Amino acid sequence: MENNRLKDLKIFSGSSNPELAKEIAENLGLHLGDVTISKFSNENIKVKLNESVRGKDVFVVQTSCPPLSDNIMELLIMLHALKGASADRVTAVIPYFPYVRSDKKDEPRISITAKLMADLLMTAGADRVLTMDLHAAQIQGFFDIPVDQLLALPILCKYFEEKKLDNIVVVAGDVGRAKLNVKYAEKLKAPLAILEKRREDDKENAKVLTVIGDVEGKNAVMFDDEILTGGSLMELVRILKESGAVEIYAGITHGILSKDAVPNIAKSDLKELVITNTLPLPPNKRIDKIKVLSVGGLFAEAIRRIHEGEPVSCLFT
Amino acid sequence: MENNRLKDLKIFSGSSNPELAKEIAENLGLHLGDVTISKFSNENIKVKLNESVRGKDVFVVQTSCPPLSDNIMELLIMLHALKGASADRVTAVIPYFPYVRSDKKDEPRISITAKLMADLLMTAGADRVLTMDLHAAQIQGFFDIPVDQLLALPILCKYFEEKKLDNIVVVAGDVGRAKLNVKYAEKLKAPLAILEKRREDDKENAKVLTVIGDVEGKNAVMFDDEILTGGSLMELVRILKESGAVEIYAGITHGILSKDAVPNIAKSDLKELVITNTLPLPPNKRIDKIKVLSVGGLFAEAIRRIHEGEPVSCLFT
Amino acid sequence: MENNRLKDLKIFSGSSNPELAKEIAENLGLHLGDVTISKFSNENIKVKLNESVRGKDVFVVQTSCPPLSDNIMELLIMLHALKGASADRVTAVIPYFPYVRSDKKDEPRISITAKLMADLLMTAGADRVLTMDLHAAQIQGFFDIPVDQLLALPILCKYFEEKKLDNIVVVAGDVGRAKLNVKYAEKLKAPLAILEKRREDDKENAKVLTVIGDVEGKNAVMFDDEILTGGSLMELVRILKESGAVEIYAGITHGILSKDAVPNIAKSDLKELVITNTLPLPPNKRIDKIKVLSVGGLFAEAIRRIHEGEPVSCLFT
Amino acid sequence: MENNRLKDLKIFSGSSNPELAKEIAENLGLHLGDVTISKFSNENIKVKLNESVRGKDVFVVQTSCPPLSDNIMELLIMLHALKGASADRVTAVIPYFPYVRSDKKDEPRISITAKLMADLLMTAGADRVLTMDLHAAQIQGFFDIPVDQLLALPILCKYFEEKKLDNIVVVAGDVGRAKLNVKYAEKLKAPLAILEKRREDDKENAKVLTVIGDVEGKNAVMFDDEILTGGSLMELVRILKESGAVEIYAGITHGILSKDAVPNIAKSDLKELVITNTLPLPPNKRIDKIKVLSVGGLFAEAIRRIHEGEPVSCLFT
Amino acid sequence: MENNRLKDLKIFSGSSNPELAKEIAENLGLHLGDVTISKFSNENIKVKLNESVRGKDVFVVQTSCPPLSDNIMELLIMLHALKGASADRVTAVIPYFPYVRSDKKDEPRISITAKLMADLLMTAGADRVLTMDLHAAQIQGFFDIPVDQLLALPILCKYFEEKKLDNIVVVAGDVGRAKLNVKYAEKLKAPLAILEKRREDDKENAKVLTVIGDVEGKNAVMFDDEILTGGSLMELVRILKESGAVEIYAGITHGILSKDAVPNIAKSDLKELVITNTLPLPPNKRIDKIKVLSVGGLFAEAIRRIHEGEPVSCLFT
Amino acid sequence: MENNRLKDLKIFSGSSNPELAKEIAENLGLHLGDVTISKFSNENIKVKLNESVRGKDVFVVQTSCPPLSDNIMELLIMLHALKGASADRVTAVIPYFPYVRSDKKDEPRISITAKLMADLLMTAGADRVLTMDLHAAQIQGFFDIPVDQLLALPILCKYFEEKKLDNIVVVAGDVGRAKLNVKYAEKLKAPLAILEKRREDDKENAKVLTVIGDVEGKNAVMFDDEILTGGSLMELVRILKESGAVEIYAGITHGILSKDAVPNIAKSDLKELVITNTLPLPPNKRIDKIKVLSVGGLFAEAIRRIHEGEPVSCLFT
Repeated sequence: MENNRLKDLKIFSGSSNPELAKEIAENLGLHLGDVTISKFSNENIKVKLNESVRGKDVFVVQTSCPPLSDNIMELLIMLHALKGASADRVTAVIPYFPYVRSDKKDEPRISITAKLMADLLMTAGADRVLTMDLHAAQIQGFFDIPVDQLLALPILCKYFEEKKLDNIVVVAGDVGRAKLNVKYAEKLKAPLAILEKRREDDKENAKVLTVIGDVEGKNAVMFDDEILTGGSLMELVRILKESGAVEIYAGITHGILSKDAVPNIAKSDLKELVITNTLPLPPNKRIDKIKVLSVGGLFAEAIRRIHEGEPVSCLFT
Repeated sequence: MENNRLKDLKIFSGSSNPELAKEIAENLGLHLGDVTISKFSNENIKVKLNESVRGKDVFVVQTSCPPLSDNIMELLIMLHALKGASADRVTAVIPYFPYVRSDKKDEPRISITAKLMADLLMTAGADRVLTMDLHAAQIQGFFDIPVDQLLALPILCKYFEEKKLDNIVVVAGDVGRAKLNVKYAEKLKAPLAILEKRREDDKENAKVLTVIGDVEGKNAVMFDDEILTGGSLMELVRILKESGAVEIYAGITHGILSKDAVPNIAKSDLKELVITNTLPLPPNKRIDKIKVLSVGGLFAEAIRRIHEGEPVSCLFT
Repeated sequence: MENNRLKDLKIFSGSSNPELAKEIAENLGLHLGDVTISKFSNENIKVKLNESVRGKDVFVVQTSCPPLSDNIMELLIMLHALKGASADRVTAVIPYFPYVRSDKKDEPRISITAKLMADLLMTAGADRVLTMDLHAAQIQGFFDIPVDQLLALPILCKYFEEKKLDNIVVVAGDVGRAKLNVKYAEKLKAPLAILEKRREDDKENAKVLTVIGDVEGKNAVMFDDEILTGGSLMELVRILKESGAVEIYAGITHGILSKDAVPNIAKSDLKELVITNTLPLPPNKRIDKIKVLSVGGLFAEAIRRIHEGEPVSCLFT
Repeated sequence: MENNRLKDLKIFSGSSNPELAKEIAENLGLHLGDVTISKFSNENIKVKLNESVRGKDVFVVQTSCPPLSDNIMELLIMLHALKGASADRVTAVIPYFPYVRSDKKDEPRISITAKLMADLLMTAGADRVLTMDLHAAQIQGFFDIPVDQLLALPILCKYFEEKKLDNIVVVAGDVGRAKLNVKYAEKLKAPLAILEKRREDDKENAKVLTVIGDVEGKNAVMFDDEILTGGSLMELVRILKESGAVEIYAGITHGILSKDAVPNIAKSDLKELVITNTLPLPPNKRIDKIKVLSVGGLFAEAIRRIHEGEPVSCLFT
Repeated sequence: MENNRLKDLKIFSGSSNPELAKEIAENLGLHLGDVTISKFSNENIKVKLNESVRGKDVFVVQTSCPPLSDNIMELLIMLHALKGASADRVTAVIPYFPYVRSDKKDEPRISITAKLMADLLMTAGADRVLTMDLHAAQIQGFFDIPVDQLLALPILCKYFEEKKLDNIVVVAGDVGRAKLNVKYAEKLKAPLAILEKRREDDKENAKVLTVIGDVEGKNAVMFDDEILTGGSLMELVRILKESGAVEIYAGITHGILSKDAVPNIAKSDLKELVITNTLPLPPNKRIDKIKVLSVGGLFAEAIRRIHEGEPVSCLFT
Repeated sequence: MENNRLKDLKIFSGSSNPELAKEIAENLGLHLGDVTISKFSNENIKVKLNESVRGKDVFVVQTSCPPLSDNIMELLIMLHALKGASADRVTAVIPYFPYVRSDKKDEPRISITAKLMADLLMTAGADRVLTMDLHAAQIQGFFDIPVDQLLALPILCKYFEEKKLDNIVVVAGDVGRAKLNVKYAEKLKAPLAILEKRREDDKENAKVLTVIGDVEGKNAVMFDDEILTGGSLMELVRILKESGAVEIYAGITHGILSKDAVPNIAKSDLKELVITNTLPLPPNKRIDKIKVLSVGGLFAEAIRRIHEGEPVSCLFT
């Protein structure tokens, strides 16, 4: 049964993560909007909205997973179709935002592609963006439209609190992630350690790894915003083991888990990897060691609040 | 040896059609610009320009072939990187423009995606566009920046003129392509015939095909801007044969040749398909019946004229 | 009596076609908005809105008829005054859109003036456009705002269907209009013929005319989007008569009928010219042979639907 | 013979004041650019540039005289064609700017049309504007592009100085023009008088006229930026005569002279009206009492300085 | 008690004139919005909105008084925070607009800073502006957003009418202010006189002052939009006294009263200076000779009308 | 003597750091551009360029020091005046960029003011920005124009290398600064330690400070981008001393040194504070313990390279 107050709200899903989109819509008592997405044999994508959106408050759910470029193009075309079809307001709901690591010019003559993504979304017709755990909070400033950034921190911390691990140390896998981990450490009332990686003298690519802080005899938990191949995590697990850590956990918002990430995790000393469903996890990557927490309820509540003009800041703790 | 007048001109190539880009550069006596394009395991594309472009007049060659969305994203990121690296002027050279068939709202609630492409290119930093044979000339009006549209007509007609076929009839494969074919017919001094396709009464999808005009005993040549799976062409060949045409040729600018296009052509009554190299033709699709003409010299001359501020209109005949 | 639901809707009329504007307003149970349009002796136009439009949903009706430039300037000034007076949304209702034939660069160094018109309307303050039968559907893509394009096809076809002519052939007056006429032919279940005009060898301006398809012994109906001086139509009528057509009709959306169009039609073999009232027909041009169908009801219904957020696509059939 | 330094400079003329445009070009040793301006029978204007402007510094001369709306549209289309043809920089040279009296909202719900003109010019492609004696200097602030405003003051004052009139009083025809006239009075070292017009109590439209300051026994000269029908000037002449002025002159930049302005001046007590050629004066309006001074040399020098990057401020005294 | 209709209306105050903001809010039965404005030790300003503004119609009151640059930056940051916090519409209420005298280029190579202010306000997020007595009405044209300009004239004239002075003459302190003063003179049914200041021959800075019109034996009232140090006013008072004026008053909208303005007024022959509270008057500048009239009720009524979509033009008389 | 190649280059200075601007200009063999900056008694700032900038490549040097808001407004007005005076390109040279700590929404309903600054600079007319050591590199992405960010790292490291301290440890004063310090540590081939500050349970504002890593018996050097009151630095010095550090140094790019920073440093255990001259250091703040390194040569070289179209990336090491 459709909620009466929400009658002008519509949720559409792209092809990237229909399960999450469906979960969000169901949390709001809605069906997903009716849209047909197809591809011509020259790979041109076609989006056809099968229901009127005139004057509606529309949210489009599309995350950043393979095939990534297709998913981005599809989202841009959906936004364009929605604006052309006279939707009143269109919010791009992008649980895992693309190109977040390309957020600065750390080499000459590269693109700040996260900024380009912001520009492309605005050009295509997005009036707002709703996302989660941007790699750097500054990315919000790339937009001229309002951006709401949800945090996985409350969900991940709740999970670890309920585990009732004792003698925890929170470990940042990189000095650049120290600031993020200190927030988790404060929430979990645990001390902080940091893994420092440094290029060794005169040796291309060789790195010296040092754990700054004390991990011996402790249960270590490492937090991060995204995991790709898991190479850094595997490295961290080895060092922590060598340094005397007891059990080792990781809590990571966006589980890309590309290449051999899953088999490597399976055979490693990592006790458990906790991720969220901002990206879909294909069945062949589902193993016991990987726990997936849902962000569907949180996104649904954020959408309801944005639609009804209520503050969303209360969702951040 | 590099032309002195051209010292501020640079040609970069995306991943889509490096052979054509190389041919264009060589025609101008230049090397391709040094760029590294790579992909992270989360499929984020990275573009790194390895040489300075400050104050240069840069042309980026990227066509619309599979993987299409990747090629579009790559082009947008290259444009963004070039503008960020202070190139003076950046021209997107897009031999086959993407989404040209999505140029109008012939159904409700679809995107005019060719217009979106224009907007995305301008947002990413394109100052000009150079392209060939847009499906509809009106697409030029989607841009707020100058667009130069080259024509394959002189190249294709020259080829057929040199063939010295007699008793030619030019055949439009669809009423919507009649206007294009009349230009070829005028150039080749041949009469025109048109294939009309019409939905039959009460029957979903069934079509009645009628050849309007006289083809019996003639050598038929059909012209078009693009060929995808070749389904329509095969249909046309059958009808023309039934209607008494002798030899049947096709001259088509952009040879996408997706799915079973090549084997179908191989076994059909089509005498020859003439295309250009606006798209790359993989070795496994190269058969004797398919003749590829190069547009590299034409693009090179257009780029030279744009760079030097000379008129390009003389290239259209 | 004013419709309660429509209380925030206002219709204003420019000077070009007040009868149509009045008809539209009456169909909606509204009076036209109160505005004074005057001209100073230096030909500066002044628009003064005599009623408040703050927060209203305003539609301005202005078509493209002589004095054309005055009517365009007047429309731009009205839009500017409405936005400055804090209207909530302003829709330019332009039954016959100006400069539709200037929709592409078919010669070097000309303006795509239809694109310029789109830009000027947006600059002046238009939030939407409502129009009918654009010369090319691609013109919608010239806008960054939503455009609804109504079709005269259902109105014109209904008229000819009620005439119960038998043995009809639909004739496109030009290969470029073949695609439009095939839609009418499908609707009227009639075959299609096409007039091909071609420049003759070595003779400037001389043209060879060929009818492609069969018209002998048939009643011919030619459809088009606009008729100016009627020169092409008169030519077509002559050829069709020579080719053995019985009765000849024309159904044309926008009846400009400039210069000697009306006397020429009067004395020609054309049986009847059917147009709509998208442009006003002055009393001295009203002859029995010219039948005017009203689009007022269709525009009124489209405006009601836009105002109330209902789909307009159902009006296209 | 064409000046070598000026080889990238081109002057085009619209239809409004070709004599002035020609005079400007000749002052610069140039021919006018080759352009064909025509009108279709539906009054659509067509602009075709007959020579390449790629990379050129182009100035288009178009003033604001009847048919005004046509002249404005023509200018906008020329600007659009020039930018589309890849001109490097386009300057709109508008000796008499349109809609200068519509520069503020002195009534509710009217358009600040001079601002709209600025927006339309920028939208159409103007990179700069060169004009003379705007009704209010604030109009420069309506633009986001540089505007150079020339003054007729040095030309008009020089003329009156050479007349060697003695016992001059400068008279502002309205309190709103007092500030302009005080500049002329300072330059001519003459005292100032002001005509005040005021609505009389309880009588609609009736006005009380009062001359503030002393004019008896003096030669009066009134300055203004524009003269339309001359009604106010005739009124001023009568009052000045009644107040004992000896000879009465007027120096006015823009001579619109609409309606019966010329016959009224002919039979009035005005000794002489001095205007400039910012607008063309048709032969039938040329009478001895009206002296026309040329601004062609001044505009030519301003264009030369803008083209060569020299300051133009020295032209203001 | 909060007005029910006004439940989506919020008034915020910057630091410049909290008393006026409070008075406006109270007139509307509202409390001021809760905001914390602070300054870091590097003088970076921080604005923190302590209540949700999502979907609200927000008005921010900030006037142009010292510290001026801080107040402007603070306003821009507030607008930016409000838009970022998803306010539906943000109106900048700027009783005394900054940089109004920089409204034209009366010298080469200066900024039209009032135009820059308009651009900065729009960039920061203002959707509308509400202000009072702009130095020149043309400044409205600097904006692309609606501007409502209130007038102090009804308030000032009502005050002088109630004084029942007889034998009044209205005196413009400068020819440039003649037009403003004639409006007051009409309203007060009084004659007009004008002070003309002129640079003397050959003497830098020396000025000749002339009173044009008759002031002897009359009570003189001078009106203007702003008073800074009062130097010109003191000069005017001296000349008027010498010319035989009896009592001398001034009615000026914006009382900046910088430097020694107040002591100079105290010891001058000026009978009374009447200003409004568009700027705050510090206690040490409050003397009997200076009468402050409130514009709070007028601004409140204008805000109510803007919020409810009622015309504001009726407030201008 | 003025460099011939640099003849179209001009350097202007705002009021904030004229010594640095002069040093930059002298390094380039240029005089500073002639500009008069003044303030009216209503605190309106006036900028008057006293030399022509038409067609020039202009760099304006203005840093972010008190009076900050005045300096920002002054810069915006200078940029606006330069663009209005037809400068060809205007680069804002802002050694210490304002509002860099307001680069994200770490609280609800605050402004990302660094983004607003970027928008204001672009609105006012900046074509490029040249700055040093932004607090977060992501701030570059706030701009739609190219930004070159210089680094103080080579200058600061060279200074410490020449000191030949042995047994160094680099200490980050905060986990958020760990990433910056690791770059310095790599360059100086020293280990890293990090100070972690954490809110204590249940106690508002009370913080627990922990040094992660080993500092005992070592010479500690802390690097950061800015120092305000020095409170955090003093805290760090105390903790380091308690932890057994020998000598303690700080290398900080931007020395704001507000409030009691200088006296606190004077009496602290800090051995030396090394800053640069991106901000001016008033004579009363110059003490022996504070060493100021000049960035003038580096900025001059960057400007020369930008002007001449050479890469600037080589300046980063």
